[in-house]
Amino acid sequence: MQYLYDESGRRFIDCISNVQNVGHCHPTVVEEISKQLATATCNVRFVSPKLTECAEEILKTLPGLDVVLFCNSGSEANDLALRLARDFTNKNDVIVLDHAYHGHVTTTMQMSPYKFDHGSSLEKPDWVHVAPVPDTYRGRYRLSDEDLSDETQLIEAGKLYADEVLNIINHAESQGRSVCSYIAEALQSCGGQIIPPKGYLVNVAQHIHDHGGVMILDEVQTGFGRIGEPFWAHKLYNDGFVPDIVTMGKPMGNGFPVSAVVTRKEIADTLGGGVGYFNTYGGNPVACAAVLGVMKVIRDENLLDHVEDMGLRFEKELNKLKAKHECIGDVRGVGMFWGLDLVTDRISREPATQLANKLIMLLRQEYGVLLSTDGPYSNILKFKPPLCFNKKDLKMAVEALDSALISLTARRSSIR
Amino acid sequence: MQYLYDESGRRFIDCISNVQNVGHCHPTVVEEISKQLATATCNVRFVSPKLTECAEEILKTLPGLDVVLFCNSGSEANDLALRLARDFTNKNDVIVLDHAYHGHVTTTMQMSPYKFDHGSSLEKPDWVHVAPVPDTYRGRYRLSDEDLSDETQLIEAGKLYADEVLNIINHAESQGRSVCSYIAEALQSCGGQIIPPKGYLVNVAQHIHDHGGVMILDEVQTGFGRIGEPFWAHKLYNDGFVPDIVTMGKPMGNGFPVSAVVTRKEIADTLGGGVGYFNTYGGNPVACAAVLGVMKVIRDENLLDHVEDMGLRFEKELNKLKAKHECIGDVRGVGMFWGLDLVTDRISREPATQLANKLIMLLRQEYGVLLSTDGPYSNILKFKPPLCFNKKDLKMAVEALDSALISLTARRSSIR
Repeated sequence: MQYLYDESGRRFIDCISNVQNVGHCHPTVVEEISKQLATATCNVRFVSPKLTECAEEILKTLPGLDVVLFCNSGSEANDLALRLARDFTNKNDVIVLDHAYHGHVTTTMQMSPYKFDHGSSLEKPDWVHVAPVPDTYRGRYRLSDEDLSDETQLIEAGKLYADEVLNIINHAESQGRSVCSYIAEALQSCGGQIIPPKGYLVNVAQHIHDHGGVMILDEVQTGFGRIGEPFWAHKLYNDGFVPDIVTMGKPMGNGFPVSAVVTRKEIADTLGGGVGYFNTYGGNPVACAAVLGVMKVIRDENLLDHVEDMGLRFEKELNKLKAKHECIGDVRGVGMFWGLDLVTDRISREPATQLANKLIMLLRQEYGVLLSTDGPYSNILKFKPPLCFNKKDLKMAVEALDSALISLTARRSSIR
Repeated sequence: MQYLYDESGRRFIDCISNVQNVGHCHPTVVEEISKQLATATCNVRFVSPKLTECAEEILKTLPGLDVVLFCNSGSEANDLALRLARDFTNKNDVIVLDHAYHGHVTTTMQMSPYKFDHGSSLEKPDWVHVAPVPDTYRGRYRLSDEDLSDETQLIEAGKLYADEVLNIINHAESQGRSVCSYIAEALQSCGGQIIPPKGYLVNVAQHIHDHGGVMILDEVQTGFGRIGEPFWAHKLYNDGFVPDIVTMGKPMGNGFPVSAVVTRKEIADTLGGGVGYFNTYGGNPVACAAVLGVMKVIRDENLLDHVEDMGLRFEKELNKLKAKHECIGDVRGVGMFWGLDLVTDRISREPATQLANKLIMLLRQEYGVLLSTDGPYSNILKFKPPLCFNKKDLKMAVEALDSALISLTARRSSIR
């Protein structure tokens, strides 16, 4: 479930495994997979009812979209989304967010500043354009600590960030290029647990659609209940935003390799010219059984409600920590997706990378708490635990964090 | 195992599922996977002993190679192999075989004439060069029916085909380009069940290495015992040929999504610049348990011996069919990998596409035998059954084929 054990039997509280979405080795999911494994594993050459059942369950959560293409990994899904966008629009270029990560195959590495700006041998190709992250804490358009909770200010900043996307489209077109798509995570994960301001995606979609492109939302990390009732993170603001293509992966199989691209039939029908799409394991009944198992557990255990409750607790507890520790510059998140932005100084907001790294090692070694860092400066502590993570776990994790912060910042007040 | 059942319970003999390598739902593999599913599913962020155990078992079969990188699909493995070849050689271009298929992600589609020559919206890029398939029956250098069993003639044809690769390298270099790799299946599968002549790969490797490139052998369809004792199809001739990079997939997990790239440390160490390689499910312990289960069954059930025995039986039975039916132009194969090349005329060797398609439908509907077609003209009947397929199954399949051929060629002597 929400605990991991090392080879000596020591227990750790897992605050980071969003892949094992409803809990490590959840018995319902294990049983669904095991049953299907013993029945039939064939792929879509011989269609199984699990395939249609699974596709229908997914589509119920995404009104406005009507086709599911199954793959094995987020990388495969994002590569396929790119192919769909290009084939549908007859355009070529892509706008990504700075610090974005979309996968490990060649094309998705090329769409990932998280990789190509940090020493990858694959460089940014001409067909990739990088827009600033809609990060109101340390992005291009920053708000003061006070304005970070002012909705009007946030919406205004979101517009400025959306205008940056428009500028890129216009510039690309002026160079004789054409943009097939904007692709971004609904909430940027590796890039530092970023929550885009209200209205941002609606405004970006307007610009992209005006210029004949499509919106690809990458929900590989954030889908399947991570933020609670909306089920998908791109529905956070309930503002009617509907992407043209959604990619999903990690949490959907609870650890079983499965991913999918969901889109509209008019888009899917343009894919690949005369050769269609074939994926050996894509849509195999075992993967579908895993996904159905995950969705059943989410329903049966009221996990969406639980996530919403926990979101409130996270907000309260993490902000209490922030009030106590100067090194916490920002607390941001929703549901079971939270980031603590560690700083050496609250005014300059300089990232406290070294402190963050020492902290997660100390938490692991001394407190049995698994946390990790992310973001371009590796200074963001990220929480994205299995959804069964509960208030007792949160209490223990926060107490450990409090204690570890005290010991680290007291021991060496100079740690940056 | 080697049978499939439809929704009414009707049984079919499966002559085509190489993915379910040791048999559909083999109880040993199901048990290994299920046990691990209930224990830990985490990826390499938290290393499991299954990972090293599995890597070691694979490396025992590939002397000369010493690093395993796990992925989820053959497509991911071939894309990663391309990245490795490029990073290691600092060269860019790739030589592929005509009609080759290496996967469904963007780069592997671009390396697949099977796709880009048959209506794909992805065209052949400049960095891909297409060499002729070393097909001695209907390729560029054809042998007479008589010479097809003459080893000297075959070796000579293999040299001519290898020289074509050299010509491509020289031409590319004369254009200021550089070739990082030759990639081919050990035995071409989708391209028409092709067995390259003895010496061909050794000669190609010589040319590629002379010019600073590496040899990638795609064993996604053909590895894990398909041809018997050599375990890998590129070891067919036991001529000391050692690839620089081997990719593997389908049969290794018996239906569980898992694949791998095996190479040398000096090559692996160059990968990706400073960002390494991370794959969410790559090397997860459940996938490793599946692979270990498959390898255990191959050992415990002496499947490699069985495959060699069956290879002799296939050869005998299919050649008997050929002696009886003028429409069978060529019988080729080894172990449990066979092709029947159907022709309208043995002299012209014109492909009997329509006959092949009618045949597999008839076999499915009337005889409960699952066969399929492949090759650029869809006229090759391909056999690649689960390795537990036995002499009784072969007898039934061949009798069905004989009877279906009689009824089709008698009913309409004009079918082409």
